[in-house]
Amino acid sequence: MTAADTSRADHAANRLCRAIDRTGSAVCVGLDPVADRLPPELTGAPAARFEAFSRGVVDAVADRAAAVKFQSACYERLGAPGVAALHAAMTHARDAGLVVILDAKRGDIGISAQHYAAAAFEGPAPADWLTVSPYLGPDTIEPYLSHAGRGVFVLVRTSNAGSDAVQSVRLQDGRTVAELMADTVGALGVGRRGVAGLSSVGAVVGATKPADAQALRRRMPDTVLLVPGYGAQGGTADDIRALVRPGAASASGKGVLVTASRSIIYAAREAGQRWQDAVRRAAESMRDELGAVL
Amino acid sequence: MTAADTSRADHAANRLCRAIDRTGSAVCVGLDPVADRLPPELTGAPAARFEAFSRGVVDAVADRAAAVKFQSACYERLGAPGVAALHAAMTHARDAGLVVILDAKRGDIGISAQHYAAAAFEGPAPADWLTVSPYLGPDTIEPYLSHAGRGVFVLVRTSNAGSDAVQSVRLQDGRTVAELMADTVGALGVGRRGVAGLSSVGAVVGATKPADAQALRRRMPDTVLLVPGYGAQGGTADDIRALVRPGAASASGKGVLVTASRSIIYAAREAGQRWQDAVRRAAESMRDELGAVL
Repeated sequence: MTAADTSRADHAANRLCRAIDRTGSAVCVGLDPVADRLPPELTGAPAARFEAFSRGVVDAVADRAAAVKFQSACYERLGAPGVAALHAAMTHARDAGLVVILDAKRGDIGISAQHYAAAAFEGPAPADWLTVSPYLGPDTIEPYLSHAGRGVFVLVRTSNAGSDAVQSVRLQDGRTVAELMADTVGALGVGRRGVAGLSSVGAVVGATKPADAQALRRRMPDTVLLVPGYGAQGGTADDIRALVRPGAASASGKGVLVTASRSIIYAAREAGQRWQDAVRRAAESMRDELGAVL
Repeated sequence: MTAADTSRADHAANRLCRAIDRTGSAVCVGLDPVADRLPPELTGAPAARFEAFSRGVVDAVADRAAAVKFQSACYERLGAPGVAALHAAMTHARDAGLVVILDAKRGDIGISAQHYAAAAFEGPAPADWLTVSPYLGPDTIEPYLSHAGRGVFVLVRTSNAGSDAVQSVRLQDGRTVAELMADTVGALGVGRRGVAGLSSVGAVVGATKPADAQALRRRMPDTVLLVPGYGAQGGTADDIRALVRPGAASASGKGVLVTASRSIIYAAREAGQRWQDAVRRAAESMRDELGAVL
């Protein structure tokens, strides 16, 4: 994909911007189903319950969130039936107009990266975006970028405590390891920008590391940031503000998509409330909180 | 697992050492099936062909290789039926006495890492070892280590050209990024050693980077190294020798497991030769070549 492609209807960043503009929401709902937290109304075999739950969450949030992020590990844990449930739910989400992010954190070399790209972007349930790990080098990210209309979120700065032991380590040239990765993301995005100037090479940057946020944003000015860690993990509205792309003309052009999982999909129910209504309300609250920032 | 566990029959490194001693082979056969390279004798739906091929390779190499390494990407590409084929083939390999390595290069934080560990090590087709990516920090590797009898190979130094852009970068303290990861692997292995002194925390170190090999081995003296890149990718017997653990009393104690995929599973056939015989002969040749080194 080249600069000449910026107006393509199927550019991954364009599709995401349209979803943010349409819903007025920069919320991404994370689907991390685990068997013992599903609503008791959902019965049957584990994979059937995962699929019913995932479809139910999609229906509840479809006009309150721009995207859903499927945590592949949760479904893989159920084996082949879990993968079938994942694919059915991904298809349902895309049919509902949501941008679909497959959070599988894949990373492999050469032909194996091509296989992972095909698994995520081709076949019966293609994702719009895939999370990928950068440790094996930039040449292992490129195979994902040859799929028109698809994008990747590269892991740059994660929200877990132990990430500092790798990502905050300083190089001889003065950058941190995370900043090295951010520069890689910025470079890969050149020539891959959509209409709002955002590229199809995104990055995961946790909201719980505010000291790093602005330095990373400067190195990736045209990158969509997928931001975990808001709310339950301690990230605040100010932390989100630090990640916004300066000078953006529209909400979607600000290049921030904030993801929350358990606080939405397992939202506490009031007496007599349907589980999907609690999910819908939680997504709505987060949309409104972020609306004050974005 | 603690030092007191060193004699456990189900320690991952002990099981691997037994397989190397039993077969006299430090060969790991990589199963990377792709549809257009399968023997034409195998017909049917793609997933059925993958399963038949994988079982056939297992049968051909079971007494000439210590381990088989399943490239998850190849099977995932076929969706849920591919995952079912993968699991059937993994079970068949373990039943045949081979050590089973799932090459899925997983890496995620907290509860998601626990889900990936459960997906790999529990359920219907448990692997003995899983490859994992270290970019998210040592706390994201620990969830895999609480599974008794299972081990991980942490990506430290990979064989692709672009890996230098990350792994060879020098830190302010003088180490490279790969050396930082090697130190992490060494530290995680303390208290997790088996009878030969080898730990259940292994590392992937490519044979194509000989200049780095000995420095990395010194930082991980008790680590099993899973070594790709031999043969087709340019790694030589001397490159393997540089990775051997000094002073080991037995072949299995040398801590090196050399993996080859396409050169074995797609070995050229002579006129009239059965495909499995070609695979068997290729594994045998590699076993003998390595025997001169290990």
